[in-house]
Amino acid sequence: MRAFPIVSTANSTLAAQLDAAINNKTKPLGSLGTLEALAKQLGLMQDSVAVKIDRPAILVFAGDHGVVAEGISAYPQDVTWQMVENYLGGGAAINVFARQNDCALYIVDAGVNHDFGPRPGLIDRKIAPGTRNFALEPAMSAQQCAAAIEQGAALAADLPGNVLGFGEMGIGNTTAAAALMHKLTGIPAAECVGAGTGLSHEGVLRKGRVIEAAAIRHAGASDPLDVLATFGGFEIAMMTGAMLEAARQRKALLIDGFIVTSALLVAARIEPAILDYCVFAHCSDEAGHRRMLDALGARPLLQLGLRLGEGTGAALALPLLHAAANFLGQMATFASASVSEKAHD
Amino acid sequence: MRAFPIVSTANSTLAAQLDAAINNKTKPLGSLGTLEALAKQLGLMQDSVAVKIDRPAILVFAGDHGVVAEGISAYPQDVTWQMVENYLGGGAAINVFARQNDCALYIVDAGVNHDFGPRPGLIDRKIAPGTRNFALEPAMSAQQCAAAIEQGAALAADLPGNVLGFGEMGIGNTTAAAALMHKLTGIPAAECVGAGTGLSHEGVLRKGRVIEAAAIRHAGASDPLDVLATFGGFEIAMMTGAMLEAARQRKALLIDGFIVTSALLVAARIEPAILDYCVFAHCSDEAGHRRMLDALGARPLLQLGLRLGEGTGAALALPLLHAAANFLGQMATFASASVSEKAHD
Repeated sequence: MRAFPIVSTANSTLAAQLDAAINNKTKPLGSLGTLEALAKQLGLMQDSVAVKIDRPAILVFAGDHGVVAEGISAYPQDVTWQMVENYLGGGAAINVFARQNDCALYIVDAGVNHDFGPRPGLIDRKIAPGTRNFALEPAMSAQQCAAAIEQGAALAADLPGNVLGFGEMGIGNTTAAAALMHKLTGIPAAECVGAGTGLSHEGVLRKGRVIEAAAIRHAGASDPLDVLATFGGFEIAMMTGAMLEAARQRKALLIDGFIVTSALLVAARIEPAILDYCVFAHCSDEAGHRRMLDALGARPLLQLGLRLGEGTGAALALPLLHAAANFLGQMATFASASVSEKAHD
Repeated sequence: MRAFPIVSTANSTLAAQLDAAINNKTKPLGSLGTLEALAKQLGLMQDSVAVKIDRPAILVFAGDHGVVAEGISAYPQDVTWQMVENYLGGGAAINVFARQNDCALYIVDAGVNHDFGPRPGLIDRKIAPGTRNFALEPAMSAQQCAAAIEQGAALAADLPGNVLGFGEMGIGNTTAAAALMHKLTGIPAAECVGAGTGLSHEGVLRKGRVIEAAAIRHAGASDPLDVLATFGGFEIAMMTGAMLEAARQRKALLIDGFIVTSALLVAARIEPAILDYCVFAHCSDEAGHRRMLDALGARPLLQLGLRLGEGTGAALALPLLHAAANFLGQMATFASASVSEKAHD
């Protein structure tokens, strides 16, 4: 895999300028809470006190997973392609929320087990019609994994704008994401798995056992790329590549839920500075997400009990990015508005 | 005070219809979390499965407080009128967020200690130039309190649209709000007070002692209107009136932070059914807000560490109301999109 040199956003001069700009606004010090930290982070990413949200976009990557043969999903595999059709028809949650928030939406076939034929609006980057079953063999070859990363990076490189959100669809992909989490963080498999689209308690236990057994079978996989190839999905690897390239370009990455965060987990092992560019949209209701976020030191913007994927949390958080940029750009200062400053404590 | 007959939204037939409409959308059951509860609540308020967000507006009420003589605020009283000027000039946080979210904004002088003269854009409903110091005497007379409620109700009655957000400005008003909370919930004064615009620890302790002493002085005040007149502010009483009228009209009330919630605390003692119409925008960083929300059984949408007031949290939460209405109105169903339903658990 080629290198993605990502520069840290650390810049004490600019940080001080941003603090001063934020603190001079007509409001009590710190009273915009998380939005102040977000405005500062965006400024550092953009290397400017003039923060702008420019043509935000969400990429939704879809892929199928051989591990569904183990009975780890509540829905049949066909739902992956059926939901891709739903995205193309504009009827899914992510369509609704992206439309509402003026966010461009791109749907990518990273490796769905279905022949869509020529479909306007669908970006065909299919690596293969689904991964292999990682309970038995590595999900993909090293070449497939590298190709997926490269395709993701190329897609990100082609996009305008400075905010890129990530979403995914793939029946079985909470299992792949939980396996990545288990291998990369060392957190026990039973604490990485959740109900996904709606598994029973028994189903969740089965999912945990599948991951534990696979981790033993593939105990040799240890470097991040090898782990990604062994347990990941094409949509996950493509997100990892797109994230690395977008951060290299100093774009803000809007991180959605459990599966998107697992792609970031891989990317952060490759290039830790990527975390400077990550805005965590929400904490999912999927059981392992909170711990995955903790492992990344992430503080998500929203806690709405979402567990839908598709990038829905990213789309819903976008207005908060606008709010951060807008208060910094548009609010009056104490001096410009002739408002008295604090008198005493 | 005249009556504000508010009907409960309880309607088991409509509730079942809303549940069915939400559950048939192309997403795992319950996977939109809080947004699903919000869509259902809006449907019940609007007595319809066709939920609409129509011409949302935020009313910002400003008033001054005699209790500032006790040294309970970090900012001088002049900041109240100076910030009103800032709103009229479009430079405050609430202007920025209301603009961003296409929300109408109305600024009301409920009782600011300043002669604005004729000011385009300022709605003059001044009851008096500030309340009296409740450390020494009741903040307002029963007549003033009734007039403020009536003015608020009349303002709400005149507004179009079906979502009404509330905001406020008034140096000293976290002290009034904490006193209302203490008297109406019985929570100790020390647990009701917070730093407001930025008081020191010593300042917060002083604020608590002022409230404790005033509660003893005015121990006779017990019914909600009497408590409101004794400790409240003109902006708080006007919000109470506007809330009662808006809920009577079955509008959604978008409740902002600590002071707005204190106005609701009074309204809910007068008409408990008002809570069916309340959407709690956020949990403020002001110390007592979480407990005040708990006392109302409220679950706020956002936790962003805001403590600015002005209705900023309400404006920031508005996109989530749109999202709730939009997913219900625009998402495909499993049947319409030909997506397979859940196969097993």
